[in-house]
Amino acid sequence: MTTILETINSPADLKKLSMPELKQLANELRTFIIDNVSKTGGHLSSSLGTVELAIAIHYVFDTPEDRLVWDVGHQAYAHKILTGRRDRMSTLRQYKGLSGFPKRSESPYDCFGTGHSSTSISAILGMAVAAKTLGKKGRSHIAVIGDGAMTAGMVFEALNCAGDMKDLRLLVILNDNDCSISPPVGALKNHFTQLMSGQFYAQARDIGKAIVRPFPKLFDLTKRAEEYSKGMVAPHSTLFEEFGMNYHGPIDGHDLEVLIPVLQNMKQLNGPLVLHVVTQKGHGYAPAVDNPTKYHGISPFDSSKGIVPSPHAKTYTEVFSDWLVDIARKDPGVIAITPAMKEGSGLVAFAKEFPNRFFDVAIAEQHAATFAAGLAAEGLKPVCTFYSTFSQRAFDQIVHDVAIQDLSVLFPLDRGGLVGADGATHHGSFDLSFLRCIPNLVIMAPSDENECRQMLYTGYKLDHPAIVRYPRGRGPGVPVDKEMHELPLGKARLVRTGNAPKGARVAMLAFGSMLAEAKAVAEKIDATVYDMRFVKPVDGDAIEEAAKNNDLLVTLEENVIIGGAGDACLEVLAAKGIPADVFQIGIPDRFIQQGDNLHLYQECGMDEESILNKIEERLKRIG
Amino acid sequence: MTTILETINSPADLKKLSMPELKQLANELRTFIIDNVSKTGGHLSSSLGTVELAIAIHYVFDTPEDRLVWDVGHQAYAHKILTGRRDRMSTLRQYKGLSGFPKRSESPYDCFGTGHSSTSISAILGMAVAAKTLGKKGRSHIAVIGDGAMTAGMVFEALNCAGDMKDLRLLVILNDNDCSISPPVGALKNHFTQLMSGQFYAQARDIGKAIVRPFPKLFDLTKRAEEYSKGMVAPHSTLFEEFGMNYHGPIDGHDLEVLIPVLQNMKQLNGPLVLHVVTQKGHGYAPAVDNPTKYHGISPFDSSKGIVPSPHAKTYTEVFSDWLVDIARKDPGVIAITPAMKEGSGLVAFAKEFPNRFFDVAIAEQHAATFAAGLAAEGLKPVCTFYSTFSQRAFDQIVHDVAIQDLSVLFPLDRGGLVGADGATHHGSFDLSFLRCIPNLVIMAPSDENECRQMLYTGYKLDHPAIVRYPRGRGPGVPVDKEMHELPLGKARLVRTGNAPKGARVAMLAFGSMLAEAKAVAEKIDATVYDMRFVKPVDGDAIEEAAKNNDLLVTLEENVIIGGAGDACLEVLAAKGIPADVFQIGIPDRFIQQGDNLHLYQECGMDEESILNKIEERLKRIG
Repeated sequence: MTTILETINSPADLKKLSMPELKQLANELRTFIIDNVSKTGGHLSSSLGTVELAIAIHYVFDTPEDRLVWDVGHQAYAHKILTGRRDRMSTLRQYKGLSGFPKRSESPYDCFGTGHSSTSISAILGMAVAAKTLGKKGRSHIAVIGDGAMTAGMVFEALNCAGDMKDLRLLVILNDNDCSISPPVGALKNHFTQLMSGQFYAQARDIGKAIVRPFPKLFDLTKRAEEYSKGMVAPHSTLFEEFGMNYHGPIDGHDLEVLIPVLQNMKQLNGPLVLHVVTQKGHGYAPAVDNPTKYHGISPFDSSKGIVPSPHAKTYTEVFSDWLVDIARKDPGVIAITPAMKEGSGLVAFAKEFPNRFFDVAIAEQHAATFAAGLAAEGLKPVCTFYSTFSQRAFDQIVHDVAIQDLSVLFPLDRGGLVGADGATHHGSFDLSFLRCIPNLVIMAPSDENECRQMLYTGYKLDHPAIVRYPRGRGPGVPVDKEMHELPLGKARLVRTGNAPKGARVAMLAFGSMLAEAKAVAEKIDATVYDMRFVKPVDGDAIEEAAKNNDLLVTLEENVIIGGAGDACLEVLAAKGIPADVFQIGIPDRFIQQGDNLHLYQECGMDEESILNKIEERLKRIG
Repeated sequence: MTTILETINSPADLKKLSMPELKQLANELRTFIIDNVSKTGGHLSSSLGTVELAIAIHYVFDTPEDRLVWDVGHQAYAHKILTGRRDRMSTLRQYKGLSGFPKRSESPYDCFGTGHSSTSISAILGMAVAAKTLGKKGRSHIAVIGDGAMTAGMVFEALNCAGDMKDLRLLVILNDNDCSISPPVGALKNHFTQLMSGQFYAQARDIGKAIVRPFPKLFDLTKRAEEYSKGMVAPHSTLFEEFGMNYHGPIDGHDLEVLIPVLQNMKQLNGPLVLHVVTQKGHGYAPAVDNPTKYHGISPFDSSKGIVPSPHAKTYTEVFSDWLVDIARKDPGVIAITPAMKEGSGLVAFAKEFPNRFFDVAIAEQHAATFAAGLAAEGLKPVCTFYSTFSQRAFDQIVHDVAIQDLSVLFPLDRGGLVGADGATHHGSFDLSFLRCIPNLVIMAPSDENECRQMLYTGYKLDHPAIVRYPRGRGPGVPVDKEMHELPLGKARLVRTGNAPKGARVAMLAFGSMLAEAKAVAEKIDATVYDMRFVKPVDGDAIEEAAKNNDLLVTLEENVIIGGAGDACLEVLAAKGIPADVFQIGIPDRFIQQGDNLHLYQECGMDEESILNKIEERLKRIG
């Protein structure tokens, strides 16, 4: 039997459907997404939550002429399927397949790429101003943004501008699912909860007959009633109205009979508008509804059984998690901070044992870093966790609030290097470069799990800001010592002494995870290998020694070559006046797309075979 | 006659004064600041606005035990004078003198350093959480933040957290002077204006008899009355209350008889509090009141006459300003964006001639970059201006929204390199390092005014994101061609061919402003000189040529050596397998304090003499 979904090759096909058919389509889409993501892995909960929203927007608006930006992007699978990419969904997040996020080069319907949260209002505002400048008067501009993403500062920067521009065709849809990746925190969450509670409020402010159903069915009536009785709900202005936006809602984001007429009405309105839509993460798939965080970003699984945990070697995240609890038991001054990544960054155990010392600051990397600086200024020991790629948001704060004042903040940096399926927006490719230039910072990169633990301890003991940067996933499986000891600052570890003949003497200077490749290659060419350990301060003595005893130095790092750890070695050689033949292995100067790490390593020339070939080629030239 | 001010050596002395004496002190302080800043230069308008506030806070609270953070920091001169630094104010912003900003190493009263805006709430929140953790129950925590600084995203990230923490002794004083450096823009400004208008509102919400004077005298009554009649003023909740803060005010920030009792009352309260204080930038000095932007950050002047403009050679900012107007006249797609730096970035002429294409987005660097990306996605030509040091705030957006999508945004980067009197928080020391690692970016650094103009044009013509990075102040005074032409991408310019004997052959690879020093040194040692022009892509052919024909390469840049333009040269040599003797001149790996550029250059070994000495020393070692 042909499903309705199979007949939808573009939004134009959607517009032919009746309301019952649209509802049927929503069911089919949901089944398709569950089935697909169970095979490819991906962001399940978020994309299940926006099925009706994607249908309604494409039904009502004239995409791609009307511009639509999906914030964070991991809520956009239904959008991808409805805009001509159904047949390619099996390649989702695979090497050379469809991206897990909207991407300009992939489809004209993806008018602005996303990945990091909270960019959509700024982007759509730029596009709306462009339409005005170019005289495209009829064009609508829609940003769909989750409540979790609303906590990041740049959203408010954008609202401040948007609220001041009254003549743009701009609609911000707040997709309120009471959940970012971790459940959201902070005052904003309370604010949205309050908005959702306002039954009569919603009625009073409706923009038309369309919103006849006053309530999202999902919402917890008991809680609402309780708040109502407490007088917490009142016809007060909303946050959006303080910023000059015209606020409508909340409405049920899974009810097409509400969504479609509301959007049709709003399409007629000018000015900066906000529509507050309530959805449920994982809607329609019970395991995901019950545990949206678990089903946020997932690996392939059996959709009939849901995700079943399997035993595995510890990930670096887990090594950090264990260390943090251990050190916190010894030191009551240890405070842990995460910007909405409690699970991903390994803070669950700490938060459970030390709830008063745990701070989830919501998606707010800038605040996280400066908040940590404030704690450190008072002598506490803040441990501020970031994913490498998101730490980019805190760059200025790391420079200005932490490093200039030389405050003792420890930054465990997870997912440094290539992260696989999330692709270009999420690789931690740049951290060694943008952090290495900052004075006072100490930067370490572990090559195995135990070294990771000892580096965390070393960073914790320092009276300076310190970074411990480790990759996504598992290490080589080295046993982790319960005992902790400080590593000698700025000292590399000689792992292997080569014995190749003159003219073929190679020293591998390996940073972090690349030690594995360095050792494998070294076995074949009888090379010397250093586990450099410290990206900053880098071990100048080891580099000098390596240069004097070898014909070729090879630096290896899972970071862009430009400005990275290899450059630290070049700087030492230049400063010491030691001309040497150096070959740099690392991520080349282009954005790397998604895929399994083997493919990506090959593409970057960072796999064992590529490294070996390059060294042999270089040795021939030297010889 | 001894003034009262001369008797104040710490806040303890303040507490002995009567109200008339405190008022007299305010007058004396104001006179002292005007007199002092007219000799040292500095931030006059802001510091005149906070004289009474500084007196009242130190009178009421027990600093330094109570923690006080001044946002941005340039409003803190009265604070400095009252906390034991009166006698050193003559060294303000001078080499090895007092910093122009609060600085932890300078005084225990400066409990958290500031400089960049909008960090204070995050910092004080960290300190308040620390006090709670450490059991310091009685300690108060005060952040003073201007309305201009309230637009930056990290403030909202902080409010979102602060509003959720009900048990902290936290007071945010909103110093509302209707003015950041440029007058503030956006919806927030409207919001604050509205708050200030609410006479009966303020009365209704007073926290005690203390606020008996309902109104800041400064406020424009006509405007208020008008808004009132329009129904714009109503007993609505404030933005702060949406975030869960307890809001009080507005009150007159120049009236000690109001300020002191209000602060005394608020000192008794727990929970996150906001006090809205209205002040006037430049208060008490007519020229500064009339033109607070002109008197924001100033050079020494005759205080009896005020600042009198003097003719001078064009600054790089003015070269950019001229170019922007010229290109905008040719191309209606050129849109200019500034985060609250219309005057400083040279956008006044453009804004006047093309008001519809000019966007001051307020202090909001993150939004500025992504907004520009949105414009570029639609084929327009955004020119997004930053000061180098503030561009650090937009790092993630430049990577994620601009560069990944390879959008054609031009970023003129002003004040790259050492900026002089503003010191460590404001030097543009890192941009070449943190930007060079980003794929798709083209980075240029002009060595003179005409090259700056042609680089701006070259960047504008590119189908990639481009940076033109120029220093603060004036260049060598080269005439600027009216005509514009594209520079060949990634090509250096051979400036001088040296003719020194073998063993002493030096090639200077100069980036941007350092060409002047390179040429001067080259005259003395008969060296070859390249004006490298492009930091990225760097000219590999020129570097190879220079390496083959010389005994020593010297790279010169006004950026930290780590990861900077010199490293680009090292990377080329490594990639090509050309071992060479290279010496890197640039900013060393430590934070550089304030001072005149000659002293700073000497300290960094970047002045002519230091460079010459180092080269001669190195040549001896090679020889």
